[in-house]
Amino acid sequence: MAEYISRGVFRLNTPVKIESCASVVGDKEAQGPLGKCFDKVVKDSHFGRNTWEQAESRFQLEAVSIAVNKAGLVKEDIGSICSGDLINQCTGSSYGLRELEIPFLGLYGACSTMAEGLIISSLLVESGVSLRAAAVTSSHFSTAERQFRAPLSYGGQRTPTSQWTCTAAGAVILSQKKGTAEITGGCIGVIADMGISDITNMGSAMAPAAASTIKRYLDATGTAPEDYDYIVTGDLGTVGSKLLIEFLKKQGVDISKQHRDCGAMIFDSKTQDTHCGGSGCGCSASVLCGVFLPMLEKGSIKNILFVATGALMSTMSLQQGESIPAIAHLINIRSNKNDS
Amino acid sequence: MAEYISRGVFRLNTPVKIESCASVVGDKEAQGPLGKCFDKVVKDSHFGRNTWEQAESRFQLEAVSIAVNKAGLVKEDIGSICSGDLINQCTGSSYGLRELEIPFLGLYGACSTMAEGLIISSLLVESGVSLRAAAVTSSHFSTAERQFRAPLSYGGQRTPTSQWTCTAAGAVILSQKKGTAEITGGCIGVIADMGISDITNMGSAMAPAAASTIKRYLDATGTAPEDYDYIVTGDLGTVGSKLLIEFLKKQGVDISKQHRDCGAMIFDSKTQDTHCGGSGCGCSASVLCGVFLPMLEKGSIKNILFVATGALMSTMSLQQGESIPAIAHLINIRSNKNDS
Repeated sequence: MAEYISRGVFRLNTPVKIESCASVVGDKEAQGPLGKCFDKVVKDSHFGRNTWEQAESRFQLEAVSIAVNKAGLVKEDIGSICSGDLINQCTGSSYGLRELEIPFLGLYGACSTMAEGLIISSLLVESGVSLRAAAVTSSHFSTAERQFRAPLSYGGQRTPTSQWTCTAAGAVILSQKKGTAEITGGCIGVIADMGISDITNMGSAMAPAAASTIKRYLDATGTAPEDYDYIVTGDLGTVGSKLLIEFLKKQGVDISKQHRDCGAMIFDSKTQDTHCGGSGCGCSASVLCGVFLPMLEKGSIKNILFVATGALMSTMSLQQGESIPAIAHLINIRSNKNDS
Repeated sequence: MAEYISRGVFRLNTPVKIESCASVVGDKEAQGPLGKCFDKVVKDSHFGRNTWEQAESRFQLEAVSIAVNKAGLVKEDIGSICSGDLINQCTGSSYGLRELEIPFLGLYGACSTMAEGLIISSLLVESGVSLRAAAVTSSHFSTAERQFRAPLSYGGQRTPTSQWTCTAAGAVILSQKKGTAEITGGCIGVIADMGISDITNMGSAMAPAAASTIKRYLDATGTAPEDYDYIVTGDLGTVGSKLLIEFLKKQGVDISKQHRDCGAMIFDSKTQDTHCGGSGCGCSASVLCGVFLPMLEKGSIKNILFVATGALMSTMSLQQGESIPAIAHLINIRSNKNDS
């Protein structure tokens, strides 16, 4: 059973183990500061397929396959899989995972998908529905750019607050038994909308959602930022990260020492021309799987909050004059390396 | 705890109660054979808003609000809400439910969303994460038609196998305590793709997924069609329903007596020019909430399988030569009217 702490905030009485994880990234991500952390680098943006959408599907499939292999499992061992992405109707997920024939739950949480998938997967495992459950997500620069912004060949100038959608995927396999990192609880996000409608300033749109979720979790669990090695946000980028820290400071919470942002970490903005940093579902998923989970598994860090943030607009909602609703889901991951 | 029966198939040791439900439909749906069953009819396809997308958002909000009111609750009583729809990036859900400030999990299961939402919501309640959880979904003829097919003013001829996307929403509130209908188990669907790529023949694309899910559930639970009053599919329409019954007959399962299809039920195809019937997430959601749940609550039927089916393609995936992957999720709902 899970323990209800407050609305949307829960603790798992029996933590769910992270049995395995994998990250697959594109060439630009591999050239960034975290380049050596990922399991696989795919230099071809088409990943051997005919279209970028098909390539993104293959990124997801590859991430799941590597994670399954690393755990010494076969796909039949995975009881359910939660997945979503940014492409219209989440086709990166459904076409990518179709051949696996694993019971499939499709999600849409924009770039918050990895945390959402981990929340739902951890409940599937904890409740006993699935002996093992996987969470996976992906993004692709070229599929996102042409869907949300402009044709790539248009060569539009990028604004200073813009972020670069990562070509990447991350997959995590959860189980009841094995793993030196474990999910102990989480917080389901509430939609926050502060009226921002600039699609090239997503960090600012998402920062209030991240602040709200982190504050709700800390308050409900009676913990403070110092109780965590890192408080990792999804892809606020540099502008959004600064705002998040300011928002929380105004509410009496200082996370400046613990805070890391996957979007701010994945690129070197000075040399890689990525402005405010990386974004996309695959950004936080690959950085979680490539950087933070390995540290937890080794025991070099003990306790983190992973807070993936998503902007829930569409091009049509913005054309109709709407602002950008955002959400952030949180999971608490601990190392049990020295406990066992 | 849930009991694992087989991969993706589970039984809830403590059934989750359906505390309340609500359905809201458009004018055409109200003129159909089920017209008197729904909680609210909205004659204006814009529902007082400026755009159809905004109208669809309001359908969801209205369905949730009515369900909350019927149960004598306020929105703060709802611990989490699962929602998704067909509009790109599921904006019907995120914009529609934004003002509720309920912890929100976005789903994408195309027209299977209501069953997917009920599976996840039932686990949220059963595990203790949420004291009450809501599942809601919607569709709108005009948002779907212009997004997936052609501008409405184009006036394209509809093919005989096409279905009519319902303008409708349905919402269900689950709880641990109150309710004379209850969810006892379910089956997470596996993606099925038989190579169909005709967007005007969705019933045929989805029938194999429905057959697979129903067969898996019956086999795993050792039950037969006769154990159920109805086996209700989402929106296969008349062509897809015929195929489903044939597929299962070839596998030795005859559901012809128990089978009902929400898409085939909601319109009178002879007088309403809807060809194969209704479709859209809101179709099965509104028929479940308007027709089947009230019968279970009254005790006039005792046990049903609700199998919502979804087609997981996008316009771009079809333009790229892909076929239509489909999925069907199942929940088992019983009446406990005379037990209590």
